[in-house]
Amino acid sequence: PNFETLFSGRARAIQSSAIREILKVTERPDIISFAGGLPAPETFPVKETLAAMERVLTGCGREALQYSTTEGFAPLREWIAARNSTPEAPVHPDQVLMVSGSQQGLDLLAKVLIDPGDTVLVETPTYLGALQAFSLFEPKYVSIPSDGDGLMPETMNGSLRGAKFLYCLPNFQNPTGRLLAEERRYRLAEKARELDLLILEDDPYGELSYAGDTPRTIRSLAPERTVYMGSFSKILAPGIRLGYVIAPTALRAKLVQAKQATDLHTSTLAQMAAYEVVKDGFLNGHIPTIRKLYSDQCQAMLGALSRHMPEGVRWNSPKGGMFLWAELPKGMDAGALLAKAVENNVAFVPGMPFFAANPSIEALRLAFVTVPPPRIE
Amino acid sequence: PNFETLFSGRARAIQSSAIREILKVTERPDIISFAGGLPAPETFPVKETLAAMERVLTGCGREALQYSTTEGFAPLREWIAARNSTPEAPVHPDQVLMVSGSQQGLDLLAKVLIDPGDTVLVETPTYLGALQAFSLFEPKYVSIPSDGDGLMPETMNGSLRGAKFLYCLPNFQNPTGRLLAEERRYRLAEKARELDLLILEDDPYGELSYAGDTPRTIRSLAPERTVYMGSFSKILAPGIRLGYVIAPTALRAKLVQAKQATDLHTSTLAQMAAYEVVKDGFLNGHIPTIRKLYSDQCQAMLGALSRHMPEGVRWNSPKGGMFLWAELPKGMDAGALLAKAVENNVAFVPGMPFFAANPSIEALRLAFVTVPPPRIE
Repeated sequence: PNFETLFSGRARAIQSSAIREILKVTERPDIISFAGGLPAPETFPVKETLAAMERVLTGCGREALQYSTTEGFAPLREWIAARNSTPEAPVHPDQVLMVSGSQQGLDLLAKVLIDPGDTVLVETPTYLGALQAFSLFEPKYVSIPSDGDGLMPETMNGSLRGAKFLYCLPNFQNPTGRLLAEERRYRLAEKARELDLLILEDDPYGELSYAGDTPRTIRSLAPERTVYMGSFSKILAPGIRLGYVIAPTALRAKLVQAKQATDLHTSTLAQMAAYEVVKDGFLNGHIPTIRKLYSDQCQAMLGALSRHMPEGVRWNSPKGGMFLWAELPKGMDAGALLAKAVENNVAFVPGMPFFAANPSIEALRLAFVTVPPPRIE
Repeated sequence: PNFETLFSGRARAIQSSAIREILKVTERPDIISFAGGLPAPETFPVKETLAAMERVLTGCGREALQYSTTEGFAPLREWIAARNSTPEAPVHPDQVLMVSGSQQGLDLLAKVLIDPGDTVLVETPTYLGALQAFSLFEPKYVSIPSDGDGLMPETMNGSLRGAKFLYCLPNFQNPTGRLLAEERRYRLAEKARELDLLILEDDPYGELSYAGDTPRTIRSLAPERTVYMGSFSKILAPGIRLGYVIAPTALRAKLVQAKQATDLHTSTLAQMAAYEVVKDGFLNGHIPTIRKLYSDQCQAMLGALSRHMPEGVRWNSPKGGMFLWAELPKGMDAGALLAKAVENNVAFVPGMPFFAANPSIEALRLAFVTVPPPRIE
C-alpha cells in the first residue's frame, strides 16, 4: 500500500527533525553531551528497587503480574494524594490517575480536551514533548510572553478567553530552568479565574530545588481549574515509566475512560514496587542527595561557562532542575553551532524546537547533570 | 470551568457503559465470574520474573532504570523478529516496535491511520478494546460478516476499497474464541491485495492453541500489507504491560514518532526483565503448561454447559484461548440475564458491546480460565 496516502492528517503533520538526526551521534561515548534530558543514573535507587521487587513478587507476585484497574494502585494513589495535599487544597485519592510517565498525562489530556483548531496557551519557550503530544490533536498555539521569572500573566488579556487550556511548567522548566516567580503564580491563578481558563501544571522538576523549597503550586491556588502532573522519573527513575495526574473529578473520570482505551492501565508491578520504595519515607533522605548533586553540577557548569564563553553569550542561573538556557550573540544560529560542536565532540540542543511560534535562533539548552565536572570544564 | 463544554468531540463521544457498572460487582470474591478477560494467575512466572529482576538490576541496574529508545530494547526486538520470522516472510528487528501492552499498539495505529470519517473494517463481533481505541479517532465501521470459522472473505467486495484497514483477530478471537479457518486466511490475503487493503492482525492468543498449532499468520501470507500485534500478556503476564507491533518499515517509522509523543518509550526495566525470562527458551516449557490448563478449563466449561444449559442455548467449542461464545434462544436479552445472574452470584459479559453494528442481544462471552472446575460446575 502507499502508506503516505494511508496516514492520517495528524500523522502526516509530524515533522521529522533535523536536530534529532544530528543528536543521534550524541550517543557515542566520546561525545560530551549536554543534549539529553537524562537524570543522573547514580541517583537511581537500584538496591531499593530490587528489594522492593523481592518483597512485592514474594509477597503478592500473582497480583503484581495480573491486570489491574485503569485508575491505578490504590495505596500509591493514597500516598500521592497525601503528599500533594495542602490545607487550602486537599487531594482525594480519587482525583489521582496513575500514568505511564507524565508524558502519557499530556497525551491523555490532549485526547480528551483538544479538537482540531482549538487554542492552547503555552510558555515561550515550552517543553518540546508537550508540543509533540498536543500537536497530534491539531491545536493552534498562542505563546504567552515569558522572561527570566517565567510566563508573564499581566500580558494575558480577554483575547485568550475560550482557549482550551494554558500549559505551564512553573518549576525549573524544561528547557530554560526558569522558576515562575511566586507573585506571578498568584496573578496567574487570578487571571485564570478571570478568563475561565483551565491550567495544566506540569511539575516533574519541583522536587529538584537546590535550596529545598519552591513557591506554592498553581494547583494549590486554583484547585478547581488546575490539572497537576507529577512524575517519579526525576526522584526515583525514569525507566519504570511512572507518573500521575491530579485532576478535578469530572475531568479525571474522562481521563480514566481515555486511558482505558489507550493502554488499559499502567504496570501493576511498577506501581506496587514504587509504592514499596517510597511508602516508609525513603524520599526524605533520597531527594536531598539528588538536590546536592544537581546543585554541584550546576555550579560546575556555571563556573565553566564564566571561564570559557566569549563575550556576548548570556545564560541564566537556575535555582533547581537539570537545565540552563543560553543565548548566543544576536543573529548567531545555535543550529549551525551544533554542527560545529559535534565535530568537536560536544553536543547540546538548539532552542528553536521549544518555541510554538517565532523561535529564537540564538538560544540553546544545556543539560548539566550527567557530565562529570572535569568534562564540563 | 464547565468541563462538559471543554471536552473534545472525541471525549464527549465516549459512552459510559451500563454493563461496566454491573460488572463492577463481579470483583466481589463471592461472585463466580466468567466476565473478566484475565489470564490464570497460577501460570505467571513469578519466580522467573524475580530472578530476572535480580540479574538485570544487579548486572545493569542503572541502564535498566534510565530512559531508553522509543523503538525498544534491541535484544528483545531481535528475539521477537527471530521468533516471528517465517521462510516466506522474515521479520527484521527494525520492523519491531515495543509497546506498553498491545492495547497501546491499537492506540498508536489508530493515531497514525484514522482521520474522522475513515472506514475501518472489523469482524462481527470484534474485540471491544479495539473499538474503544479506534473510536477515539472517530472512524465509521463496516462489520464484515463472520461465522464459526471467522470472518468471511468472500463477502468482501469492491465497495470496501478505500477503507483505512481491516482489523482482525484470527486466533481464538476475543470475544468468540473463533479460529479463522486456514483457507480463509489465503482468501483474505488475496482479497486484501485485490482491494489494496492494509490488515491489522491482532494475535494475543495465538500461542494458546490447545493442540499446539495454528494456521499460518496473515502476516506471513501478505507481509507487505499486514501489521502484526503480539503480546506477552498471555504467555508471561499482563501486569508488566508489554507487547509489540511488527509493521512495514514506512508505517513503523511513523508509529515510532507517534509513540515518542505518546509516552516516550516502554519501561526499560520491563523489557530487559522479560528478555531475561525468555531468552534461553523458557517459553518452550512454559507455554505447553498454559495450553494444558486452558484446555482442561475449556473442557470443564463445555461439560458443565452440556449438563446444565436448557434447550435452545447454543455455544461453540474453542480450539484455544480463554473465551467461548454462547447464544440464548432468539429474542432473549443477555443483558437482562446478566442482572439476574448477578443476583445469583454469577457474572458474564453480554455480547452487545462487541458489535460495531447490529448487536446480537442473545449473545454472551464466557471466560473460563480463572474459575476452578468445581465452581464452573
